[in-house]
Amino acid sequence: MKGLALALVHHPVLDRQGGVVTTAITNLDLHDMARSARTYGAEALFIVHPIEAQRLLAERVREHWVEGSGKRRIPDRAHAMDLLRVVPSLEDAYQALGGRGAIEVWTTAASARGRAVTSYAEARERLAAVERPVVILFGTGWGLTGEVVAGADVRVAPIRARADTGYNHLSVRAACAITLDRLLGV
Amino acid sequence: MKGLALALVHHPVLDRQGGVVTTAITNLDLHDMARSARTYGAEALFIVHPIEAQRLLAERVREHWVEGSGKRRIPDRAHAMDLLRVVPSLEDAYQALGGRGAIEVWTTAASARGRAVTSYAEARERLAAVERPVVILFGTGWGLTGEVVAGADVRVAPIRARADTGYNHLSVRAACAITLDRLLGV
Repeated sequence: MKGLALALVHHPVLDRQGGVVTTAITNLDLHDMARSARTYGAEALFIVHPIEAQRLLAERVREHWVEGSGKRRIPDRAHAMDLLRVVPSLEDAYQALGGRGAIEVWTTAASARGRAVTSYAEARERLAAVERPVVILFGTGWGLTGEVVAGADVRVAPIRARADTGYNHLSVRAACAITLDRLLGV
Repeated sequence: MKGLALALVHHPVLDRQGGVVTTAITNLDLHDMARSARTYGAEALFIVHPIEAQRLLAERVREHWVEGSGKRRIPDRAHAMDLLRVVPSLEDAYQALGGRGAIEVWTTAASARGRAVTSYAEARERLAAVERPVVILFGTGWGLTGEVVAGADVRVAPIRARADTGYNHLSVRAACAITLDRLLGV
């Protein structure tokens, strides 16, 4: 592995009718995904949001925990929240990692929507052997747009239970935790 | 498997100094853990809280999503939130499942604290073969008390990454998702 980053995408993502929208930042996404990222050894968590006021909110949350009174109350949290990188677009995240051509972009989704996907067993082997940094994208709302998914180097298979439970609606926080555990857990 | 329930415990749990405390309910715990439970086929999510006002809060959240306007907005969420069972104590959760003697109580923890634990590989086999209902306890705050952990039938091993990242502070929402995936994922 040459370095792993995560990106939580608030735009472009889908709403429940399939339209392209921008979602609001959820405070606990930042905490949970930063803690999971740090636990499994990811080096950065990009928070992708095109609206400046939302980026400032995320920056303030980060500062509270990395430098402010949050750090004094829960010192461990600083080591996780320190991974946050707040950027306006996916392109900015890619640039920070060396540019689109220098990295692998992986996507996650609750449904393959007919596209070819990579199993977790294969993805785990590929991540261990890959010679470029990898960034795994997680969509908020109803998920990443078809264009983002189509442009990825790897589309990781949807997470599912062994039993057919007829339900597959994990939160992005839960999906991120499971993805990291499947790729990097013991 | 003879039926699986989860329990999110707000008392008795530890604070960061190791004292026994009661924590407040976090709205997103109910959503995330209910969605994970439903995705992996658990039949109930007990919300254990000794304070009536906190139980009423949890009941109102449940009603909003199972019967109220939340259901109209996101119908899928109703199928998950319908798993919530709000009870004053762990004993009440055990009684609802047939009584302590009729079930297996499993605990999860971020640290084994020197106790013997069951690996996830073993726990997965045991869960598939067990002839009594199983309830898996998740602690809020700084985790379940020593007494609760000592009284369990199975103490599942702490979740960890393959690499030594020096950090193991998952949110209870993330830990619950990973536990279910390790026990019941494909």
